[in-house]
Amino acid sequence: MRNYAIGIDIGTTSTKVVLFDEKGAAVAHHSKNYPLLSEEPGAAEQKPDEIYEAVNESLRETVRKSGDLAERIGFISFSTAMHSLIAVDSDGTPLTNSITWADIRSEPYVAAYKSDYGDEAVELYKRTGVPQHPMTPLFKLQWLKNDCPDIFQKAARFVGIKDYILFRWFGEWKTDHASAAATSLWNMHTKTWDEEALKLADVTPEKLPTLQPSTYYWEQLSDVLTKKSGLDSSVKVVIGATDGPLSNLGVGAISPGDVAVTIGTSGAIRTTSATPILDTDGRTFCYPLTENHWVSGGPVNNGGIAFQWIHDILQKDSDSAVHEKLSRDAEQIQPGAEGLVFLPYLTGERAPLWDAQAKASFIGLTLRHDHNHMVRAVLEGTILNLFSVYSLIKGQVADMEVKIFATGGFTNSPLWKQIVADIFQTKVSIPEHTESSCLGAVLLGRFAIGETKTLEEAPVETKQYEEITPNPDHKTIYEELFQLYQSLSETMQSQYKALHEFQNKHKKESGK
Amino acid sequence: MRNYAIGIDIGTTSTKVVLFDEKGAAVAHHSKNYPLLSEEPGAAEQKPDEIYEAVNESLRETVRKSGDLAERIGFISFSTAMHSLIAVDSDGTPLTNSITWADIRSEPYVAAYKSDYGDEAVELYKRTGVPQHPMTPLFKLQWLKNDCPDIFQKAARFVGIKDYILFRWFGEWKTDHASAAATSLWNMHTKTWDEEALKLADVTPEKLPTLQPSTYYWEQLSDVLTKKSGLDSSVKVVIGATDGPLSNLGVGAISPGDVAVTIGTSGAIRTTSATPILDTDGRTFCYPLTENHWVSGGPVNNGGIAFQWIHDILQKDSDSAVHEKLSRDAEQIQPGAEGLVFLPYLTGERAPLWDAQAKASFIGLTLRHDHNHMVRAVLEGTILNLFSVYSLIKGQVADMEVKIFATGGFTNSPLWKQIVADIFQTKVSIPEHTESSCLGAVLLGRFAIGETKTLEEAPVETKQYEEITPNPDHKTIYEELFQLYQSLSETMQSQYKALHEFQNKHKKESGK
Repeated sequence: MRNYAIGIDIGTTSTKVVLFDEKGAAVAHHSKNYPLLSEEPGAAEQKPDEIYEAVNESLRETVRKSGDLAERIGFISFSTAMHSLIAVDSDGTPLTNSITWADIRSEPYVAAYKSDYGDEAVELYKRTGVPQHPMTPLFKLQWLKNDCPDIFQKAARFVGIKDYILFRWFGEWKTDHASAAATSLWNMHTKTWDEEALKLADVTPEKLPTLQPSTYYWEQLSDVLTKKSGLDSSVKVVIGATDGPLSNLGVGAISPGDVAVTIGTSGAIRTTSATPILDTDGRTFCYPLTENHWVSGGPVNNGGIAFQWIHDILQKDSDSAVHEKLSRDAEQIQPGAEGLVFLPYLTGERAPLWDAQAKASFIGLTLRHDHNHMVRAVLEGTILNLFSVYSLIKGQVADMEVKIFATGGFTNSPLWKQIVADIFQTKVSIPEHTESSCLGAVLLGRFAIGETKTLEEAPVETKQYEEITPNPDHKTIYEELFQLYQSLSETMQSQYKALHEFQNKHKKESGK
Repeated sequence: MRNYAIGIDIGTTSTKVVLFDEKGAAVAHHSKNYPLLSEEPGAAEQKPDEIYEAVNESLRETVRKSGDLAERIGFISFSTAMHSLIAVDSDGTPLTNSITWADIRSEPYVAAYKSDYGDEAVELYKRTGVPQHPMTPLFKLQWLKNDCPDIFQKAARFVGIKDYILFRWFGEWKTDHASAAATSLWNMHTKTWDEEALKLADVTPEKLPTLQPSTYYWEQLSDVLTKKSGLDSSVKVVIGATDGPLSNLGVGAISPGDVAVTIGTSGAIRTTSATPILDTDGRTFCYPLTENHWVSGGPVNNGGIAFQWIHDILQKDSDSAVHEKLSRDAEQIQPGAEGLVFLPYLTGERAPLWDAQAKASFIGLTLRHDHNHMVRAVLEGTILNLFSVYSLIKGQVADMEVKIFATGGFTNSPLWKQIVADIFQTKVSIPEHTESSCLGAVLLGRFAIGETKTLEEAPVETKQYEEITPNPDHKTIYEELFQLYQSLSETMQSQYKALHEFQNKHKKESGK
């Protein structure tokens, strides 16, 4: 029986390929790293062919490691990082690198659009579900047209990194609705490219890949892919979706009311619903996973990076045991850190502020506060920030029991996990498996090819969780702390422009 | 020739007695510590008789150490900490401890007055020159009347600690204009007790000491004092003034435009002028030194205590060399700390906020900022705070070259001294002698008894200074930083009440 399947996740720092058995257990995997290139300020690019080779190598190695199990592989399915843009010529040869979500060179175009378009900007958001930000291909296209006009003119198409890989394999320019949605050029109501958005980007549908639902699949491998992968040609290829929504599926946060919280270096919070959930002020995203599964939430810049930063300030020792000690010492401090609040915007912030100029602050310091309070405040601040994103949409979340699924490096800190449970006052489930986007791709694939009737039918292995119970004694203090946090965050917003201008003007030339 | 003199300074933690020669050099000294008692929250009291004994002992020991020079002592002159209050019965026996400036139990009466009296509060300030604060005897009397009505009724007089010492020596209740001014009951225009203020405090002039100019003196010692001191009875006793104004005199900051900056645990900034300087909003004090010398400025809570706090957070090692290292490392960071701003209100703040609920903050944090930036920001923040007090009155300071005289423990840090010069963009003179209040008392005494024609005639030894030159390259950045600091400080003011309430409600029971 061909009941094994491969999930591929094209991430920002690496491509990961995992073979799962029918119960959802990972049985073989391989991954390959690649660099993020920044040849000018604000740039964050990757070489498309380097990623193509990484995908092929990881796939081939995973198949090789699978041994005899390779014969039982029924399909490959895809996850990808969002927001990438590559200009290609009529032969499909890249004219640019893959410009990633982290590239902020289109920032002036975002600022100009927001200031020029006012209410129309909100309307655009309501059709596309994407906050206006330099990450989105819409504004990258404006930047490309103005700053690299030769390339813009010469380009036959503008595609994403997954589209490019599939083109190399199948010779067809296809993209899925989830990847399309991440461009801010896709209309969630018509499920077609959005006319107004295309005008803003100065492109026509012919210059973009053709649209497919995330369940679209190729019945068999191409010759190229057969050769590259070492699989036999009867394996199907599911187009799949994007990493955020697929991670929700992979961790099991797929029923209405389910919330996925993930914190690595940065972080995100995403809830699933049967119909789109939008914020009145355009501060949260809403992406499709399937026609009946929408994933809403927000990405935040400041997650583990904030903990690493306070660690570096307080300790010279880079031993990882020191991280654990810091987190353990902070447990001695009571919830609320005796009123020390950390606004975590060390690297500006996406959701909920969408302000690249935002700065971090420790507010409320007194002689009572020591370094343990600072660590606790940092951990609490990152979660309060995610909670503030969630608060934008929770009114629209189905009136069901809310359940949180947490993933990412932060789950190694018992204190940090408990803070999530306590601030949300909700049980937190931490899946024992990792690589949730790869698993999500495979679960979507099983639904796409008809192995399962619903997305919710997850196999046994995906249902193993560590569970963290909220402490009801901490409910009130965190409610009060969140009020304080919101008030401080709102008050400080007026100050970021002046702070940013001062910092920009007076930063050390040879800075870190 | 009797051209030696003794200065006595009754401080908050000790009484210091110093014998000066005719050139202003200290030739003998003795001091005696005593505790600050806090038997209930907000209380900060001292035992009057303990201080009386400390003054006698320090005086006697200084005379003993003077040896043959004792015969050349012409007078004793006095400095005292401001704002103390003692209720005494008709025999002069204390009914209370000496309630010091640090006692904040009258805070509710200050808050009620400010909210009930509005414009009248500003008028009161304009007559008395004292910001409305729990430190002032006016509000301490309201507290005493309401919270200790028996004592208030029984009291024959309400006096200050210096008044009490002089009463024990001479059997007369006399106080000087400078000490009287610090009560907020004294009218700077009529140079009498202020009728409206006395009504607010519910006292009559008979219940207060009689008023004398700071140059008043007793022609000879009393029998008691002769016996206690070991001096011969022909020595004169000058009533003197208060420690802040006398310190200005002692450091030589006595000409219009001169500014004294002092930072120990807390700090102060004081400028001298020929006529009173008042702030339109009542945020600075104005005290008399003599009829033609007025000292205006503000006390700040957060000086060396802020440096000690950041030291304790960043370093476990209490070795004093670590303080030096921290300060030296912070020199590697350029002025402005790359846009990291520290609002130093760790212990609330007196001038310029007069808000006991104010909290400290680090604002503008990014990944660029490390512990050296934090140290530099703390040092800069304490000086920006003093500069913000100065900015309230500098428009009224005589249009002359401004010169800064700096004293206190902070002058041990080369970086901190330089920051003062750079933020004020003014030469900073640091006197090589210490005990400026004792010296100021003696210089006032020389003028009082006619040895000098003007206060400005300072003897040779008092003119030895270390001088710090401002770096003109840092002018612009500090001007911009100050704008930023002021904007942040103003913005944050709306948040302190909520922060304070949260902290008060949720502080650790067994807190430090």
